[in-house]
Amino acid sequence: MISLRLLFLFGLTAVGLCAASTDKPVQKWDIFELELKGPAEGNPFIDVRISAVFTNGATTLEVPGFYDGDGVYRVRLMPTATGAWRYETKSNRWELTGQTGLFTVIPAAKGNHGPVRVRDTFHFAYADGTAFKPIGTTIYNWLDTPEEVQEQTLKSLAAAPFNKARMLLLPQTDSYRKKIAPSRWPFAGAPPRAWDFTRFNPEYFRHYEQRLAQLRDLGIEADLILFNPYGKPWGFDTMDAATDERYVRYVLARFGAYRNVWWSVANEFDFLRTKTMADWDRYGQLVQQADPFNHLRSIHNGALIYDHNKPWVTHVSMQNGAAVEESGRAEMYRGVYTKPIVYDEVKYEGDSAFRWGNLSGQEMVHRCWAGTVAGTYVGHGDYFYRDDTDTWTSFGGALQGQSGPRLALLRKILEDGPDHGIDPIDKWQDPRTAGQPGTYYLVYFGRETPTTWPFQIYKNGVADGQRYKVEVIDTWAMAVTPVEGEFVTKKKDGYHFIDAQGRSVAMPGRPGIALRIQRIGADGKPVKVSLPID
Amino acid sequence: MISLRLLFLFGLTAVGLCAASTDKPVQKWDIFELELKGPAEGNPFIDVRISAVFTNGATTLEVPGFYDGDGVYRVRLMPTATGAWRYETKSNRWELTGQTGLFTVIPAAKGNHGPVRVRDTFHFAYADGTAFKPIGTTIYNWLDTPEEVQEQTLKSLAAAPFNKARMLLLPQTDSYRKKIAPSRWPFAGAPPRAWDFTRFNPEYFRHYEQRLAQLRDLGIEADLILFNPYGKPWGFDTMDAATDERYVRYVLARFGAYRNVWWSVANEFDFLRTKTMADWDRYGQLVQQADPFNHLRSIHNGALIYDHNKPWVTHVSMQNGAAVEESGRAEMYRGVYTKPIVYDEVKYEGDSAFRWGNLSGQEMVHRCWAGTVAGTYVGHGDYFYRDDTDTWTSFGGALQGQSGPRLALLRKILEDGPDHGIDPIDKWQDPRTAGQPGTYYLVYFGRETPTTWPFQIYKNGVADGQRYKVEVIDTWAMAVTPVEGEFVTKKKDGYHFIDAQGRSVAMPGRPGIALRIQRIGADGKPVKVSLPID
Repeated sequence: MISLRLLFLFGLTAVGLCAASTDKPVQKWDIFELELKGPAEGNPFIDVRISAVFTNGATTLEVPGFYDGDGVYRVRLMPTATGAWRYETKSNRWELTGQTGLFTVIPAAKGNHGPVRVRDTFHFAYADGTAFKPIGTTIYNWLDTPEEVQEQTLKSLAAAPFNKARMLLLPQTDSYRKKIAPSRWPFAGAPPRAWDFTRFNPEYFRHYEQRLAQLRDLGIEADLILFNPYGKPWGFDTMDAATDERYVRYVLARFGAYRNVWWSVANEFDFLRTKTMADWDRYGQLVQQADPFNHLRSIHNGALIYDHNKPWVTHVSMQNGAAVEESGRAEMYRGVYTKPIVYDEVKYEGDSAFRWGNLSGQEMVHRCWAGTVAGTYVGHGDYFYRDDTDTWTSFGGALQGQSGPRLALLRKILEDGPDHGIDPIDKWQDPRTAGQPGTYYLVYFGRETPTTWPFQIYKNGVADGQRYKVEVIDTWAMAVTPVEGEFVTKKKDGYHFIDAQGRSVAMPGRPGIALRIQRIGADGKPVKVSLPID
Repeated sequence: MISLRLLFLFGLTAVGLCAASTDKPVQKWDIFELELKGPAEGNPFIDVRISAVFTNGATTLEVPGFYDGDGVYRVRLMPTATGAWRYETKSNRWELTGQTGLFTVIPAAKGNHGPVRVRDTFHFAYADGTAFKPIGTTIYNWLDTPEEVQEQTLKSLAAAPFNKARMLLLPQTDSYRKKIAPSRWPFAGAPPRAWDFTRFNPEYFRHYEQRLAQLRDLGIEADLILFNPYGKPWGFDTMDAATDERYVRYVLARFGAYRNVWWSVANEFDFLRTKTMADWDRYGQLVQQADPFNHLRSIHNGALIYDHNKPWVTHVSMQNGAAVEESGRAEMYRGVYTKPIVYDEVKYEGDSAFRWGNLSGQEMVHRCWAGTVAGTYVGHGDYFYRDDTDTWTSFGGALQGQSGPRLALLRKILEDGPDHGIDPIDKWQDPRTAGQPGTYYLVYFGRETPTTWPFQIYKNGVADGQRYKVEVIDTWAMAVTPVEGEFVTKKKDGYHFIDAQGRSVAMPGRPGIALRIQRIGADGKPVKVSLPID
């Protein structure tokens, strides 16, 4: 089992030869978990430090571990390469330190694409290179509901188009149906405020992990919100700095090996008045430093916009519904931040008396499309309040709104589109058009209701004689209708190309119409974008 | 003349008693100039360092001086307080060091409000507390034209509404009428590239100063652009770092005492490919450190947006015409930067074949209004190219466009408006409305053409029974028409107040219409905003 080559790679000593070997190989980007028995007396959450150094020769990572209760300690690795790996534990306790072992990482199975990373400045891809086009939703407190509601939420998600979900890690004030309080709490003690903030409740986190794994298996990224301003009755908004930091480190140690986690340092950070901008910057940097797997990191605003140019921020997580009312607005944060722009809250589809929860289904879909042709990503919310249930965006359960199937069409279109994502084609001039120059265009007309569209595309990447096929997309009726024939480019002026025969596209005269324009090759099939992957 | 109190204040020694006393008192925020004779041999620009420490007891400033040729050195103070001041020179030459003197600063005369500062986060005020509402224009190379054109430019400015003008310090490629090259150059040597970059041409700067003073006397702030990407034939874009820094320090030492200067580190900085982002940051910080008078500082972009959150930037100088096509866009940079947003380039009114210089007069005026109700400021440009002249925005001369008088109306409205400026009233909800809650509103309808407007204002600052008068402003026809009677507020719902009798305002059904809504007191006169000045 331990080959000479491995011996050479790891420089194993006689001690190393005694390393334990696990039987079950682990997939790349899956979780290798090391379980260790150690002290249960005292307060292990505070007293015991445990980590492990993992190496495959090329990559060496020190991964913090955590106490899981009952004298059990765990260290979890998300291995990033196949082949032989070795570990050695480090601890301030003799019984936990210096333990070594070997294990084998096998290739990722189908459906396991690894963690999501930023790619091409404004977009995302999984670690295996597969593009990731977020169609997110929000289910803040779905893990504070009765088990059957959680199961229903998973069923709803399985049937919905969402590949990212935002959720809180700390409970908020409201209880499900205004009466069922959470059955688990993150700290030892009892609600409302008899917490021992020096002791976590492992059961709370184990349950959360089970759900994270289920989301992962559904292909859903979990955008985990570490802090929120809604926990006043429980005192979660007034934990001191040491508790905050211990909490962040515990969460990262437990959840960091789940490939589908994203870290959202806070929701509506500016509404959490007990913390300063310097605190947020410190916690953001802490997350960056304490996560050996470098998951995506963001912070989400209320009324005050965070400085997303700070180096620890990997992508923008924006609340601003007005910004996606039209794509010219939505584009503006791209220029400011040169990072992916994710509009994680643009108001919710719903029937709320509040202005933040009363979008029509049409408006929800419109905002997602407006953001799309701005080269950004827009998240969904569903806020229909019923006597016998609660809203999706608060607690999950069943979706009530009408936007879901339309966002499924959008997701399909994005996934069929260029790997490099959708970027504005003629920035600050034509907010309707995005895609990849010379090959692929989406033109979205929003609230406009044209009955004809003279074929015209911006010059970048275009030359005379290119052939394009056009489809008319009704984003609400979910119809994609090919336009007969093809369009052949001819230079019009210093800026644009039109069809050589001056042809126009007949348009249905309704709002919410888009065009998909794809260049076709000699075989009549769409030409693929051939940019190098950065 | 030298009182005991002064002796006490300055801790004067016997040497101090020998200090020279100037005869002519200087106004606060005017220029006190110290002229010194020193060495003319060698290269005084490089070899000689000269500064003076000025103090009035409360404030002490070390102000760098400069060599003005012919053995003459000058140090210029913009005094910031009335009363007795003292100076003492410092130099690396014996004949220039240790010279002391006394002078008196008298109160500022009428029309002298001091330098402009940021106030109320998003706005500006002169040092004396008078609000400054920029209505800027651009005359990049007006000092590279024949003297009679420069005189014509000053006459045009005297008749125009502009209180700020952007201009380059270093000549650009194009010459006036494509044939008349500048008659003065900033460096010793000869065009195109036989420069001695270690020696400035004092005559160039003296001439520039004369024009700065004339602008000041016209009430115009000079937004001086230190670097630009247009000087390729002259090599001004490839000066080395030491030359750049010497140039910045020389300009600051010469011009810093002019109260009407603003520093714009660069125009279209990202088009100047010979410098990096780190260079711009360094030069911005240099300007901050080397200007004892702390004038406003900015940098202006081409296609790439600068990180205006950097501490040295006092206000945003933005090029983005698309952002002011509608006010919802224009507002967005406020949230990002929490500094005054000045859209210094939004394309120009003109007849250019290029898209950046072909706005109609109406569109130019529209963009200024759209920016205004977004709580931002918009600059003007005029780009009509004629055979017998050149464009205003390139070289000054005569204005050709139609927006000028309309911007005069806008300036009048702003100056009659709240001292604290115009801020969005219901951010991210109602992009049409700005002002100060409960007292003053501008509602701008842009391209909309309503024929009626049901009186409705957002709840902040509003209570039942407040009385408002309304005027209809036709921004293009320049008509301000009072609406008969008054409107009395009554709560409508959780967000808005309407008129108690449900009255509406009759609207003319044309584009470019605004409403001015002012709360009136028992005397029937507008209620003044009573916020504290920060």
